[in-house]
Amino acid sequence: MVGGGKDAFIGAVHRIAANMDGLIELACGALSINPEIAKQSGKELFLPEDRTYLTYDEMITKEKALPADKRMDFVTIVTPNFAHFAPAMMALENGFHVVIEKPITLTIEEAKQLKQKVDETGLTLCLTHTYSGYPMVKQAKAMIKDGALGKIRKVWVEYPQGWLSKLSEREGNAQAAWRTDPKKSGKSGAMGDIGTHSWQLAEYVTGLKITHLCADLNILVDGRALDDDGNVLLKFDNGAAGVLMASQVAAGEENALKIRVYGEKGGIEWAQHEPNTLIVKWLDAPAQILRAGSGYTDRLSKYATQNCRTPGGHPEGYLEAFGNIYRNFALTLGTKIDGTEPTPEILDFPRVEDGIRGMGFINTVVASSASSEKWTKFEE
Amino acid sequence: MVGGGKDAFIGAVHRIAANMDGLIELACGALSINPEIAKQSGKELFLPEDRTYLTYDEMITKEKALPADKRMDFVTIVTPNFAHFAPAMMALENGFHVVIEKPITLTIEEAKQLKQKVDETGLTLCLTHTYSGYPMVKQAKAMIKDGALGKIRKVWVEYPQGWLSKLSEREGNAQAAWRTDPKKSGKSGAMGDIGTHSWQLAEYVTGLKITHLCADLNILVDGRALDDDGNVLLKFDNGAAGVLMASQVAAGEENALKIRVYGEKGGIEWAQHEPNTLIVKWLDAPAQILRAGSGYTDRLSKYATQNCRTPGGHPEGYLEAFGNIYRNFALTLGTKIDGTEPTPEILDFPRVEDGIRGMGFINTVVASSASSEKWTKFEE
Amino acid sequence: MVGGGKDAFIGAVHRIAANMDGLIELACGALSINPEIAKQSGKELFLPEDRTYLTYDEMITKEKALPADKRMDFVTIVTPNFAHFAPAMMALENGFHVVIEKPITLTIEEAKQLKQKVDETGLTLCLTHTYSGYPMVKQAKAMIKDGALGKIRKVWVEYPQGWLSKLSEREGNAQAAWRTDPKKSGKSGAMGDIGTHSWQLAEYVTGLKITHLCADLNILVDGRALDDDGNVLLKFDNGAAGVLMASQVAAGEENALKIRVYGEKGGIEWAQHEPNTLIVKWLDAPAQILRAGSGYTDRLSKYATQNCRTPGGHPEGYLEAFGNIYRNFALTLGTKIDGTEPTPEILDFPRVEDGIRGMGFINTVVASSASSEKWTKFEE
Amino acid sequence: MVGGGKDAFIGAVHRIAANMDGLIELACGALSINPEIAKQSGKELFLPEDRTYLTYDEMITKEKALPADKRMDFVTIVTPNFAHFAPAMMALENGFHVVIEKPITLTIEEAKQLKQKVDETGLTLCLTHTYSGYPMVKQAKAMIKDGALGKIRKVWVEYPQGWLSKLSEREGNAQAAWRTDPKKSGKSGAMGDIGTHSWQLAEYVTGLKITHLCADLNILVDGRALDDDGNVLLKFDNGAAGVLMASQVAAGEENALKIRVYGEKGGIEWAQHEPNTLIVKWLDAPAQILRAGSGYTDRLSKYATQNCRTPGGHPEGYLEAFGNIYRNFALTLGTKIDGTEPTPEILDFPRVEDGIRGMGFINTVVASSASSEKWTKFEE
Repeated sequence: MVGGGKDAFIGAVHRIAANMDGLIELACGALSINPEIAKQSGKELFLPEDRTYLTYDEMITKEKALPADKRMDFVTIVTPNFAHFAPAMMALENGFHVVIEKPITLTIEEAKQLKQKVDETGLTLCLTHTYSGYPMVKQAKAMIKDGALGKIRKVWVEYPQGWLSKLSEREGNAQAAWRTDPKKSGKSGAMGDIGTHSWQLAEYVTGLKITHLCADLNILVDGRALDDDGNVLLKFDNGAAGVLMASQVAAGEENALKIRVYGEKGGIEWAQHEPNTLIVKWLDAPAQILRAGSGYTDRLSKYATQNCRTPGGHPEGYLEAFGNIYRNFALTLGTKIDGTEPTPEILDFPRVEDGIRGMGFINTVVASSASSEKWTKFEE
Repeated sequence: MVGGGKDAFIGAVHRIAANMDGLIELACGALSINPEIAKQSGKELFLPEDRTYLTYDEMITKEKALPADKRMDFVTIVTPNFAHFAPAMMALENGFHVVIEKPITLTIEEAKQLKQKVDETGLTLCLTHTYSGYPMVKQAKAMIKDGALGKIRKVWVEYPQGWLSKLSEREGNAQAAWRTDPKKSGKSGAMGDIGTHSWQLAEYVTGLKITHLCADLNILVDGRALDDDGNVLLKFDNGAAGVLMASQVAAGEENALKIRVYGEKGGIEWAQHEPNTLIVKWLDAPAQILRAGSGYTDRLSKYATQNCRTPGGHPEGYLEAFGNIYRNFALTLGTKIDGTEPTPEILDFPRVEDGIRGMGFINTVVASSASSEKWTKFEE
Repeated sequence: MVGGGKDAFIGAVHRIAANMDGLIELACGALSINPEIAKQSGKELFLPEDRTYLTYDEMITKEKALPADKRMDFVTIVTPNFAHFAPAMMALENGFHVVIEKPITLTIEEAKQLKQKVDETGLTLCLTHTYSGYPMVKQAKAMIKDGALGKIRKVWVEYPQGWLSKLSEREGNAQAAWRTDPKKSGKSGAMGDIGTHSWQLAEYVTGLKITHLCADLNILVDGRALDDDGNVLLKFDNGAAGVLMASQVAAGEENALKIRVYGEKGGIEWAQHEPNTLIVKWLDAPAQILRAGSGYTDRLSKYATQNCRTPGGHPEGYLEAFGNIYRNFALTLGTKIDGTEPTPEILDFPRVEDGIRGMGFINTVVASSASSEKWTKFEE
Repeated sequence: MVGGGKDAFIGAVHRIAANMDGLIELACGALSINPEIAKQSGKELFLPEDRTYLTYDEMITKEKALPADKRMDFVTIVTPNFAHFAPAMMALENGFHVVIEKPITLTIEEAKQLKQKVDETGLTLCLTHTYSGYPMVKQAKAMIKDGALGKIRKVWVEYPQGWLSKLSEREGNAQAAWRTDPKKSGKSGAMGDIGTHSWQLAEYVTGLKITHLCADLNILVDGRALDDDGNVLLKFDNGAAGVLMASQVAAGEENALKIRVYGEKGGIEWAQHEPNTLIVKWLDAPAQILRAGSGYTDRLSKYATQNCRTPGGHPEGYLEAFGNIYRNFALTLGTKIDGTEPTPEILDFPRVEDGIRGMGFINTVVASSASSEKWTKFEE
């Protein structure tokens, strides 16, 4: 693991998610650029001292020098955005698979370089767009793919948060500081951080691609350097219309990601605050409440049922969704080792192509927001 | 009453709303342009035969000829949009107050003529933007006005319906037929019908005015003549950003009008499907559930408490919200008769100015949707 | 109307409910035992002075003396429980139909006398168990009757309120004073007031009869004279088990009446706080959300569809449920006048038999609570 | 681990919960009484062959023979109820701490023997009453302990499931087979399985003890050997009244455990289907929505905040609640090793005393159900 030392947020989440199914074990780490924190964090995580490294360079070099059955199998990168590319590229160059927090890199060019290296090496790069790991998100995708809703006409996706309602980056909040700093976070703030999740969810669930968009990015807290709010009109490749909203100044909101998709015959609604429920609405019949883990497995897609750990009514959450990405990634690596063929359900996790498209999304919304033209073409 | 014969939808709603509080009684009607339906409808509503008229012209002329204490006090117009202006103008010219279904007229010019007549005569014109009659909508408005949320930054309003998911106007659905016909409905379909409600709710609750917008109106059902879906980016006069969505092809949705407003200190959320609840979210404290009719009247605005009929937990709904508009209108007329001064709470119902601004909204979204410019100025 | 003067609660509710559909008009009243309040209340309700009576005796006597087409058609009694019987009996004896607030009388013997008089006269006595007027309650009843859930096994009904959490009867709360006074309210407080509603809902929805029960009535606020809380185990005539809970000291609750019924194939859940929704749960399939007023009328019972006034998504509430009882009662009277046959849907309102059984419920729970035996037979 | 081989339900849950925080690692197992399944399960869980044992006897004996730093630290027992006692006793006798699935044993006598052994050895026995591991359950407990609700008056706890709505034990369902078999499950079915969870939650949250109860246990599916449904009236040691309901034939329900507690000043409501929310209702003020992981940590108890892994809005669920029990157990063992003092928050997990009281609950409800007396004293 690169990054994720004491007090970092997402590193701990990655560790829990990876631990969960007993398939993955933390083997070593370059957990902080601060040597003291790196050492202390390694100790707290029960890492051996000789595998608690001070830099990713040291980690990759020394691990590669270990015998094949002793060295780490893959590298997880949980540093701020600007520090994704270099360790990812070095890991790939040295034969290690990679897991990266989204957005994949600081620029789309970096993302494309990673893709080229992935293509060259045949290694796997997994991008942790967590929300597509939820079983009922996968259920929605499967139903739409199977035509249950008919042609899709309308997509609404929203992600309101409230945690940047104050100028917290000036009040000692480290998370806020890097996420609102263009040098560390990239061209966009809210859209780069949570707009990308919303975009990915919309394309993942519908199977459609955005072709044009019209973005209004805003800085609603005075003194901030990057957008903390954004609203985007969308056009999809099948003619569907859509709206994407992402805000970090929706005071009082937590992580209220929600998607609604409507087709000719009905619609679906999924919200991450109650992730085990998928509401399916029908044009001429009562709405249905589909529940993760339910006994009526014949009504649920294998994409949903294979990504649950408990029976219905024992709620699973964010960590399990995250765990599904790690599990599917690990099972995929397992098939490489075994020489078997992974099932489509196992292969269903985001990867380098999604990273490139996510960078394209950021570039396009930023360009659109700066433009007086209504519609801007989605460019990857 | 003009219009609202058998099988019309909104006429019956107006009658229930007007009846509810025992302040208003249906005195006469020109209930249909079809003489048979007009007569039969009058009979079913227990109208005397001699006050069951065949045209609004006949009704206004003959009622005016009655002694002052026998004639009707005001005229309610519940015909399709294109047939609002003429009876309204004639009623005002003959000294009758007027209640009109929204949108007020077919064109903004007609609306302005009505305003001029209202100003000349001192009569009252009430526009039934029902949703602003809900007590918890009024509570939200009062809290925002009192600064509870701080400066407003973000407004989201949405109104998904699904009832036009098929080309019902070709399948004998009379409601669908006139609402999708530009000659009867006006320049816009979904935006004219329910987008205007959303717009009114947004400006009513926040006390802000939209200055610019960027609209994407769509016809998502092939063969339809007017927009059945629309998404609009909004700019408000205090710098707040917003989104307005209205769709009649959100298959499986009923009348899922919902508004969320966020300010520096917190946010509010109100949905018409559970209208007695107002959720108030706070930046640094637990969210609160405010309930209509609750015992903690000291925590509620008089605008809310005076528009409830039952104690908390006995749900009131759409008809009561509608009834609040009629009641406040009737109480206002009462003060004119008594020569007293109405309270601000009683005066709190939509009127001709809202009608003009609503027509401005329709004009602006239609113009914006046709434009390749991102932002269009809101013109009244 | 007998009772229901200024500041009384339920009288105003009755008037709105009766007004709503334009079928019933308040003709006269004996609105208070206090002559000043009676007169003032009559004035505020636009009653003619000569039909604003000071006692029910005067009202019934004088109205009877009027010509048949001028006199009132029926009497509504909304006084405290102890003052139900005398005016009801006098009304029936004088040929007037009757509407009574529940519980029907102070004792079961009085209720039986009323039934005898009803049987003798052929008049109609309507008892306002409001909750069985909700369309989705009727839908639940119809589905269970039609066997949709299979044999019923389990019934849970609960009615928590919090308004008696303090000793309000000693703090000048008039509602609290009479409802906690055995002389005015009867043998039971919470069980008589809201336990009876719960009992009626359970038997109405399931079509089953309670045969035995085991009651635990409690006075949880020191100094109170009647039970303010009760929990009852139930046995039904088909072998089903049940629980009924009613409390007026559930601090913070409004009128959270809720019923759940489970059968071999599935269950239903209905809550008065969101009365337009009926959740139907299935053993081997996703739960469904049935909504009042929905377009899928082929999936709904006529008992539900004929008791709605608005399309789905325009919420109806308590007043409309109350209005349904009045409307069905009025339509039934109408058929008597017309000499036609009322439909089963129109006849579906509570009457004197329900009143007797309700008194039996009160008697049985009070006896059971005093007994050390586990089960007490339900006696009417 | 004893039990929990392939296809067992709760064993996998224990492993995920134990893995989650990186504090515990599966070291060895006697995973099935079927040698083939035991071996295959060990292989799938990456256990070394020489620590994949065929019986708990072999496991405990051989592990004890290993050097202290190589042997397992504790034993987790996830077998059916009848097979809890023997391995637990043997583990304690050999110096191993123990984790047991509830109910602790088949009889209360066995439970008392375990307690005696725990007292003798000073070892820790942890009982996995999962639901008390949820952070918002702990928050409710802390608030009630701190007097936020005033004196507690009323407790309602319910646990409806539907999975035994058919006679599944005769249709090859292994879970159903042992849970409905008195020899394997004990004196009670539904009450032993989920009634005990409900009882524990009620006493845990309120800090009160049940003194008397009145139980009605039912077999609602013909042919079943143990109760599949039960309703219990409760009396608490402070005079509060209560109801406990547990059913496995509530067709269509999942694991809808819910608790409501009302005191003089307000009430709390928590439901496991949305476990990150605690609704706090107030007598004279709007209800509040407390959320796990929220930023307003000053409003939340340390018992809640220390049992969360993610910020508010990233839902945690059943596995995390289970993980909290394991984490607190592991941290407690850690303090024994370190010679430090565990905090009260860390010590907050169920143990042998809860097991004895749980067996007392089962005994008392079974005795009460068989009795014609209304009230039966709670005996441990």
